[in-house]
Amino acid sequence: MTVIYDRVALIGLGLIASSMFWAMKRGGLAGEVTGYARSAATRDTARRIGLCDRVCDTAAEAVAGADLVVLCVPVGAMGAVAAEIAPHLKPGATVSDVGSVKAAVIQAVGPHLPDNVHFIPAHPLAGTEHSGPESGFATLFDNRWCLLVPVEGTDADALDRLSRLWAGMGANVDTMEADHHDLVLAVTSHAPHLIAYTMVGVADDLRRVTDSEVIKYSAAGFRDFTRIAASDPTMWRDVFLTNKEATLEILGRFTEELFALQRAIRTGDGDHLHAYFTRTRAIRRGIIEAGQDTDAPDFGRVKAVR
Amino acid sequence: MTVIYDRVALIGLGLIASSMFWAMKRGGLAGEVTGYARSAATRDTARRIGLCDRVCDTAAEAVAGADLVVLCVPVGAMGAVAAEIAPHLKPGATVSDVGSVKAAVIQAVGPHLPDNVHFIPAHPLAGTEHSGPESGFATLFDNRWCLLVPVEGTDADALDRLSRLWAGMGANVDTMEADHHDLVLAVTSHAPHLIAYTMVGVADDLRRVTDSEVIKYSAAGFRDFTRIAASDPTMWRDVFLTNKEATLEILGRFTEELFALQRAIRTGDGDHLHAYFTRTRAIRRGIIEAGQDTDAPDFGRVKAVR
Repeated sequence: MTVIYDRVALIGLGLIASSMFWAMKRGGLAGEVTGYARSAATRDTARRIGLCDRVCDTAAEAVAGADLVVLCVPVGAMGAVAAEIAPHLKPGATVSDVGSVKAAVIQAVGPHLPDNVHFIPAHPLAGTEHSGPESGFATLFDNRWCLLVPVEGTDADALDRLSRLWAGMGANVDTMEADHHDLVLAVTSHAPHLIAYTMVGVADDLRRVTDSEVIKYSAAGFRDFTRIAASDPTMWRDVFLTNKEATLEILGRFTEELFALQRAIRTGDGDHLHAYFTRTRAIRRGIIEAGQDTDAPDFGRVKAVR
Repeated sequence: MTVIYDRVALIGLGLIASSMFWAMKRGGLAGEVTGYARSAATRDTARRIGLCDRVCDTAAEAVAGADLVVLCVPVGAMGAVAAEIAPHLKPGATVSDVGSVKAAVIQAVGPHLPDNVHFIPAHPLAGTEHSGPESGFATLFDNRWCLLVPVEGTDADALDRLSRLWAGMGANVDTMEADHHDLVLAVTSHAPHLIAYTMVGVADDLRRVTDSEVIKYSAAGFRDFTRIAASDPTMWRDVFLTNKEATLEILGRFTEELFALQRAIRTGDGDHLHAYFTRTRAIRRGIIEAGQDTDAPDFGRVKAVR
């Protein structure tokens, strides 16, 4: 229980910010945590549920005197928020973010910040299909990865301090270069999300199969896609628009492979299908062994009792 | 606790058959349950763990005297198994199956069966990513759907009896016509599985992102795909080969929609993306309300404690 930052400001109060607040409280990692959200309704909700020690009506007020400012807004809003807070930052403060894309955030935020603050982009690889100020919880980051993406010339002490904060919130911390981060995330997150959204959209469109049939019989695989496709629309719009190149590259490869498998189905090439489906099992085993998912059948949704 | 069939034979002893056995035992629904698997190792395992009251070394022995015979083998093996057991079926017995495709099973199995047995194809919409005789459990079918696909002229009493068995194992029972079943399942299950297999294959192929990165950072969405793509390769090969037309139709629509979304990303059409991602949220709500999934964040893998 060591305080790492005396004053932390959270800008934007959705799933990640609210989880950070509860995780910092759990660990006693911050003195005072201030919060700001653009919507008055969100600020009211935050006050009602005790989210943040002090909810401010302007971003300027929230960041004044803060040792750490974390931008928790959709990626497309980061630049404007950075411009807004820049004149009010405390010299020596660290500015970070939690955006799912890093190169675009660095481009959008960096130019606005004064030279006397440390800018250390970050991305916690954690989330759920829920969003908003009431969706956060203290354990969201436990045993998940948080990737820090320091820009050139980052102060080692400032980096170490931010790492300790994330470790204190339960995360495993790693550093990565921005472009590589955006490619890795295009594979592990951005392309899968777009694909899930697409499949759910197709089901909804298909007039020969009713919506109620899709819903009733979803347990056969489809419902896992619907969970992913229930994620926050604004956040995901911004992710795709700002990680355009890497996402389109992965989707291009995906389409190629899908066409090859469709061709195997059409021509009846069972050996090709079987070999492909056998290979993909190994990755699942790796994920279980790395502690990044449960081996309980169906994610533990069913109880395996005899 | 009413015995519905005095003698039940399970042919093939994987996830579904073993779950049926434990569910029938839980409900006291069957007198004696016999079992047969082609592989001697599977039969040995079944004997060791007490799966089935009697494990037989031939399918003929298992079905002799059975009032209900359930084919629980991959769809591609159904025809051969039907031919093998046909001469040994008890007059008046019901023959059913649990295959994920129905029109092809009816074509493959129907012609082999004598006129004095009732053939009632079925498909329980339940499963996990695990397979084999040790993967089954009594609660697998609880609150899941089982679709019965009666062929023309099916005996009403035989249909009612099989419905009561599935209801006794915890399932909600519905009937559906074979071709419509195959289309609905192409949407809710077959296409999603192929897409998940493809995405996992792409990740594995990508030399610029290492396998260990994919595994470490999978929590960002990808790991849900890997669960689906860890399903039994033989079963899924057969599903795609035998539900070819419907699967290819849905994949064709999927590709069209995916191209439209890729184009929106490329041209920066944020409104299109946002509208699409908002629409897909409604289907998720429908599934939660229909009791076909949990609303717990991340399927309850994370514990939402403050």
